[in-house]
Amino acid sequence: MNLQKLLTESILGSAAHVFTTMLGQDLPHTQVSIEAGTPDANDGIASFIGIAGAWAGTGSITCSPALACRLCSRMLMVEVTAVDEEVLVAVAELTNIIIGGVKTDLEAHLGPLGLSLPTVVFGRNFKTRSSARHEWIVVDFHWDGEPLMVRICLAPNQRTGRVPATHLCTIEV
Amino acid sequence: MNLQKLLTESILGSAAHVFTTMLGQDLPHTQVSIEAGTPDANDGIASFIGIAGAWAGTGSITCSPALACRLCSRMLMVEVTAVDEEVLVAVAELTNIIIGGVKTDLEAHLGPLGLSLPTVVFGRNFKTRSSARHEWIVVDFHWDGEPLMVRICLAPNQRTGRVPATHLCTIEV
Repeated sequence: MNLQKLLTESILGSAAHVFTTMLGQDLPHTQVSIEAGTPDANDGIASFIGIAGAWAGTGSITCSPALACRLCSRMLMVEVTAVDEEVLVAVAELTNIIIGGVKTDLEAHLGPLGLSLPTVVFGRNFKTRSSARHEWIVVDFHWDGEPLMVRICLAPNQRTGRVPATHLCTIEV
Repeated sequence: MNLQKLLTESILGSAAHVFTTMLGQDLPHTQVSIEAGTPDANDGIASFIGIAGAWAGTGSITCSPALACRLCSRMLMVEVTAVDEEVLVAVAELTNIIIGGVKTDLEAHLGPLGLSLPTVVFGRNFKTRSSARHEWIVVDFHWDGEPLMVRICLAPNQRTGRVPATHLCTIEV
């Protein structure tokens, strides 16, 4: 099994399925890439959900505040124009469902995995950074005229009391 | 088993053990409280690590940037005066080890649990918010003249495709 290929195909499949069934729209992707320890400028919304089991990792969705509002409007069938708790909950739910779909795909190959509670970060001018120790598979989607990115970092769980890998999210101050 | 009592005692024990063995110092606590869906003003460093299994949750540590620098200095035996990647990695490691200890305690009562990779957020003037659906046990510690807080939210995993609970971290923009 090629893990990168599995993760990529699973992200593509899960995200497309969620957008088609929940939002009634296609979710075309524009690029698949691999990030390794390089800081990535970020403005807007970033969500994180933990994956844990024999393998450990993190799934993440990033998008602009405006896109998050439109996603929330579409999910809840109400007009939302500013990022409020409802919008963050909608992004958390989307993260939970998309990464949950990937988790289910992965379990066929890697054994049982668990998902933690999602965390959503909303800020201006912040960066997400990961250590150089593990790579992130990054799929750039395009929805409603804007980018939406889904990232996953996953590695064999080698918990020995030390951190197996670290995902850092730095807001520039 | 009283989950609140178990979580509280486990946080107290794990954090004290880590500080004594890794940093050679006591970690007195000043308060134990329960947070439920109330936004909490935050300035500085906040880390998150996912807990997943038959129960799902998140563990979190918050402290000031200055305290994070001093913790990193102490852990690495070098002088660190500004928050850089090394400091964030140190906080991630501390989170991993303290919440890892709690996880081990919990497993005796709740069965096998996994830990995800830690995420560290660094910002100014941001809030962490959790949904009203689940409570957080919050232990306020006091180290080197400043507060350091350890929080855990844990609930039976009721994954049905919808988000079981959400932890929101909002940077005020």
